[in-house]
Amino acid sequence: MGVVVTLEGDRDSRGKTSLAALTALVEEDLKAVNELIVQRMASPVTLIPQLAGHIVAAGGKRLRPMLTLAAAKLCGYAGRRHIMLATCIEFIHTATLLHDDVVDESDLRRGLASANAVWGNKASVLVGDYLFSRSFELMVEDGSLEVLAILSNTSSTIAEGEVMQLITANDTETGETAYLDVVTGKTAKLFGAACRLGAVVSERPRVEKDALETYGMNLGIAFQLIDDVLDYSAKQATLGKAIGDDFREGKITLPIILAFRRGDEAERTFWRRTLEDLEQTDDDLDHALTLLQKHNALTDTVDRARHYGAIARDALGIFADGEEKDALVDLIDFCIERAY
Amino acid sequence: MGVVVTLEGDRDSRGKTSLAALTALVEEDLKAVNELIVQRMASPVTLIPQLAGHIVAAGGKRLRPMLTLAAAKLCGYAGRRHIMLATCIEFIHTATLLHDDVVDESDLRRGLASANAVWGNKASVLVGDYLFSRSFELMVEDGSLEVLAILSNTSSTIAEGEVMQLITANDTETGETAYLDVVTGKTAKLFGAACRLGAVVSERPRVEKDALETYGMNLGIAFQLIDDVLDYSAKQATLGKAIGDDFREGKITLPIILAFRRGDEAERTFWRRTLEDLEQTDDDLDHALTLLQKHNALTDTVDRARHYGAIARDALGIFADGEEKDALVDLIDFCIERAY
Repeated sequence: MGVVVTLEGDRDSRGKTSLAALTALVEEDLKAVNELIVQRMASPVTLIPQLAGHIVAAGGKRLRPMLTLAAAKLCGYAGRRHIMLATCIEFIHTATLLHDDVVDESDLRRGLASANAVWGNKASVLVGDYLFSRSFELMVEDGSLEVLAILSNTSSTIAEGEVMQLITANDTETGETAYLDVVTGKTAKLFGAACRLGAVVSERPRVEKDALETYGMNLGIAFQLIDDVLDYSAKQATLGKAIGDDFREGKITLPIILAFRRGDEAERTFWRRTLEDLEQTDDDLDHALTLLQKHNALTDTVDRARHYGAIARDALGIFADGEEKDALVDLIDFCIERAY
Repeated sequence: MGVVVTLEGDRDSRGKTSLAALTALVEEDLKAVNELIVQRMASPVTLIPQLAGHIVAAGGKRLRPMLTLAAAKLCGYAGRRHIMLATCIEFIHTATLLHDDVVDESDLRRGLASANAVWGNKASVLVGDYLFSRSFELMVEDGSLEVLAILSNTSSTIAEGEVMQLITANDTETGETAYLDVVTGKTAKLFGAACRLGAVVSERPRVEKDALETYGMNLGIAFQLIDDVLDYSAKQATLGKAIGDDFREGKITLPIILAFRRGDEAERTFWRRTLEDLEQTDDDLDHALTLLQKHNALTDTVDRARHYGAIARDALGIFADGEEKDALVDLIDFCIERAY
C-alpha cells in the first residue's frame, strides 16, 4: 500500500482521523466480500434478494466485516477463509437490522419508517431468518467448529441483548450497568466476534484471539455510545440524519441515563412524561437538549466512550507495530471523533 | 415394550389408529428432551424463558422431536446424541412458530390472537432468534458438521418456504405445484431433517439416511394437507378449535386451490372477494363449505395426502420389520385419519 501512517493516525484536511488507511488495507478483500454477499443472498424466491439487497445496500460502511478482514491481516493471514467469515458477520448484522425493523402496533401509530414500511413486518422477519440461516450454511462450508461456536454464541447473546433492550425501553429507571449489558449484547459482542475470527483463521494463540476480541468489544461499546451522542448532536444534521430520533422513540441511552440521574425531581418528571409516556410537544426536544447540556451528559458520554477506546487500544499492545495495527487504532479515534 | 402391533396399526376403541405405540416407544427419551428444552431455553433475561415456555408448553405433541427419537431407535441407536438433536429440532420449530406469530398492521386490524397478543411482535421475533441461536449452540456442542449442514440448510429452506407463503397469501391464482413448494419448505423439510438425524447419529449408510428423510418429507406433506382439510372439517370442532380460521385469514390451501380451479366464474368471483379482498359476511363460510363439498375438494385433498403417505410408507421398506417400523407406519395412518 505504501501509505505513510503516523502514530497519530491519518488526519484529513479538518485535522480529523480518517478511515483511509483501513479502507485501503482491506479494499481488495472487501470487494470479494461484497461479491460473495450478492452471490449468497440469492434465492429463487425473488423477494429475498430484493429485500435483503435493500438492507445490505443501505448498510453502508461494512464496518463489521472490515474488522474481520483487518484483524486477519494484522495476524499475517494469507488465505481466503476471512472473506467467507466476513460475509457471515455481515449476514448476521443484516439479519439483526431486519429484525430490528419489526415494529409493534404502538410503533406503527408513531409512524416509523424503515424497510418494514415497504414490505411489512413479516417479510423483514423471514428474510432476516433466511440470511441468518445462510450465514450458518457458510460457516458449515468453512468447516470450523470453533467458528460455529463463536458465532452461534454471539447470535444468542445478541438476541438476549435485544430482549433486554426491549425490557428497558421507555424505562427511565434503567441504570448505566444495565445499559452497558444491553450495548454489550446488541452491539459489542458482534464487533468482538468479528475481530476474534481474524486470529482464528490465522490459527494464532489464544492470547491473540482474546486480545482481538477485547479490542472489538470495547470498540463496539465506544461506537454505540458515540451513536447515542450523535442522536442529540448538531453533527448528526451534517450527516443528513434527523436529530432526536431516539428521543421521539423514548430510547433510554447513556446521555439520558446520566441526565436523569443528575437531574432534580422536576427534570425527572419531564423525562418520564416524554420518554416513558411518550407525551411530547414541539418544544420538548429543545428542553431535553438543554438538560443534557446542563448536566454535561453528552460530553461525559464521549468521555465514557474514550475509556472503552483506551481499553481497545491497549488490547492491541501485544501485536507488532505496522500499518495494520495503525489502521485499527485509527478506527478507535475515528469512531470517537464522529461525535464532533 | 412387548406391545403387539399388527400391520394394520394400533386401533383405539373407535377403530382409529392411535399413537400409543410411538409414544410408548420414545416415552423415556421424550422426557429427557423435555428436560433439556427447559434447561437450554433458560436465560438471565427472564422474558425469554417466560415467552419461550409459553410456546413450548402450547406446542403439544412434540411430533418433530419424536420423529428423531423414533428414527434413531429404528436404526438401533444406543447413544444419547438423539436427545440433544431432538431438542434442536423442537427449538427450530418453536422459533418458526414465534416468527409465524409476527403480524402486520393489516392482520392486527383483523384481530388475530397469539403469543404476540400478549408480548408483541418484537418479543416474538427476538425470543425466536434466541431459540434459533441456542439450537445452533446445541449442534456445536454435539460437534457434527454433518448435522450442522443438515439443519442450517433446513433452516434456510424453511425461511424460503415462509417467504413464498407470504407472496402467495391471498392470491387465488396460486397453483397446486406452487402450494406444494410452500408446504415442502415450511413444513416437510423439518420433518425430513428430524428423521434423517436418526440415521445420522446411528452412522447408517446414506441410503438409510435418504430413506428416512423421504419418509419424513412425505409424512410432513400429508400432515400439512390434512391440517388444511381439518380447518374446514366438522372434526375440527371436536378438537376444540374453531372452524374456518384459514378462510377468515384468506389462506390459500389445497382445498381452496382445487375448488377454485374446478369452479365457474361466479364461484371464482366469490373466492376472490372473500380470500383476496377479505370482504366476508356471516354466510360466506357456509357457502365456502358448500363449494368445497360440491367439488370434492376436501376428500380429494385427503386422497392427495394418502398419496404422500404411501410414498412415506414405501420409503421405510428397506428397514427391518419391528415395533419401531410399525410405530412409524402407524404415524402415517394417524396423520391421515385425523381428517375423520
